[in-house]
Amino acid sequence: MLDPVLPTFDDVRAAAARIAPHALRTPVLRNPELDALLGAEVHFKCENLQRGGAFKFRGACNAVFALDEATARRGIVAQSSGNHGTAVAIAASLRGVPAHVVVPRNAPAIKLAQMREHGANVILCEPTMAARESESQRVLAQTGGTMVHPFDDPRVAAGQGTATLELIEQAGPLDVVVAPVSGGGLISGTAIAAHGIDPATTVIGAEPAQAADAFESLRQDRRITDMVPDTICDGLRAHLGRIAFEVLRRERVEVLLASEAQIVAAMRLQWDRLKVIIEPSCAVPLAALLATRERWRGRRIGIILSGGNVDLDRLPWQSA
Amino acid sequence: MLDPVLPTFDDVRAAAARIAPHALRTPVLRNPELDALLGAEVHFKCENLQRGGAFKFRGACNAVFALDEATARRGIVAQSSGNHGTAVAIAASLRGVPAHVVVPRNAPAIKLAQMREHGANVILCEPTMAARESESQRVLAQTGGTMVHPFDDPRVAAGQGTATLELIEQAGPLDVVVAPVSGGGLISGTAIAAHGIDPATTVIGAEPAQAADAFESLRQDRRITDMVPDTICDGLRAHLGRIAFEVLRRERVEVLLASEAQIVAAMRLQWDRLKVIIEPSCAVPLAALLATRERWRGRRIGIILSGGNVDLDRLPWQSA
Repeated sequence: MLDPVLPTFDDVRAAAARIAPHALRTPVLRNPELDALLGAEVHFKCENLQRGGAFKFRGACNAVFALDEATARRGIVAQSSGNHGTAVAIAASLRGVPAHVVVPRNAPAIKLAQMREHGANVILCEPTMAARESESQRVLAQTGGTMVHPFDDPRVAAGQGTATLELIEQAGPLDVVVAPVSGGGLISGTAIAAHGIDPATTVIGAEPAQAADAFESLRQDRRITDMVPDTICDGLRAHLGRIAFEVLRRERVEVLLASEAQIVAAMRLQWDRLKVIIEPSCAVPLAALLATRERWRGRRIGIILSGGNVDLDRLPWQSA
Repeated sequence: MLDPVLPTFDDVRAAAARIAPHALRTPVLRNPELDALLGAEVHFKCENLQRGGAFKFRGACNAVFALDEATARRGIVAQSSGNHGTAVAIAASLRGVPAHVVVPRNAPAIKLAQMREHGANVILCEPTMAARESESQRVLAQTGGTMVHPFDDPRVAAGQGTATLELIEQAGPLDVVVAPVSGGGLISGTAIAAHGIDPATTVIGAEPAQAADAFESLRQDRRITDMVPDTICDGLRAHLGRIAFEVLRRERVEVLLASEAQIVAAMRLQWDRLKVIIEPSCAVPLAALLATRERWRGRRIGIILSGGNVDLDRLPWQSA
């Protein structure tokens, strides 16, 4: 297998210019009580308030708008049961080209509705990796469209990095930047952007202890792809991608873990204090920082709040 | 009874300068789907993200910092079971002076904890107006402190108006500004600020149909103070104050009503779309606009999102 093409800081800057007309410049929140709890100065970059309710729109938008016109017109193909599918649907609709999203039959109805609301052609398949893959190949062959991978695509990772560019413009220089890790598009873009601005910045990936494949991959210095995640964080169940593995090693990103109880407590704490809706996956950075708080005293910290798509009928602190 | 002293646009501008070092400049959110639903351009001013989780901090901060040093040092006295008490506690603690908050025994424990967290001396009393009043008088006599009323105080109403000054700075000129109505501090400040900038702006107060004393007061042209509210909106159960009644008449503010079902639906809709936490009281403006949507087509509308203090264990769309 060829080495993957890694995105560069120039790619992140080009992505920022490309998506600027389409993506929201999300606000950065501060909270005195959370600062006091960590003994640090924390800047929360609200990608939960991004279009589609997640940072995913940045990467999808960059990938869709990077295509030449003839290629784009043949359409975009994506596999997703969640935020990436909605992000691709919105980006394709803004570009005025078709989006075909292959979705497992058991995906939440609200996700299907969101994709359709943005004009996507939703294609249901059996909920197996093999079915998703073969269905996607069929759609690609039939349409001549372009697949946009949720994370293992340098245009996608570069797009995700634009959140950190903006955050540092808005908050000023940061000592530490923290983002959740799943397939690794967000944390890769985050590391490239933060280190492009200041190579001395500490970049932390935050991962559920019960889906710790990125942590293990870095520890064993080989990409672990056979762990079975068992976490409430529905956005963090993918395995670390090839691009992310290389970027995390090169950029010396450290991965910190948080338990399920720590994640739910941090989610509730942020709902209570920040008054914004975040999904469980999005709570992992603060959970991981609180679990290691003596390290962060006096530091200027940025946290990427990754998304706010949560089932409001079933909140994790409500049993039954 | 003397006519009340009404705040002026100059008072609102002075308040903005006075509270600037202490209050957050809250973000203004946009949402394409909510725009489409109303056929209008809606700018949401996020006072739910203000200190203390509500616009109340603006008025309390203006009142507390307007006092001369000797007066302030004798302390601030407030009656509140909710957001105003927390707002006064935060403002007094920022000024470094004592806050005494008289709170009915049956107030939610979380509200007491918030006030105490900000250093307030919480004084419990029986849950009657008479007990609150006599207890407040006792504390005033004992401390020589200054009472800050939650709405019927021109410094408080002027402070609340600063949210609209900021909103128009951030969003540009608006055709319509909408805020919830209870005692009327917020809607008074909103009308004075909006009309100070452009007298042609339509200013709308939004009120629960089951707590429609402001609507009735304007309709009958006399202040109605004997209605018994029966609404989920715990922040909108006060009767319209004397200042607000005069300001609303003078500024030709229109009051629109929303049913309990419309309020809960609008609350859920805003949680889903805006990804910010708003309390039921805060959902009334969008509920009232949606109920009259044909009037708003093509207009530029500002909504003051008034607060986000809600019991996360008991959400109104979850029965039992």
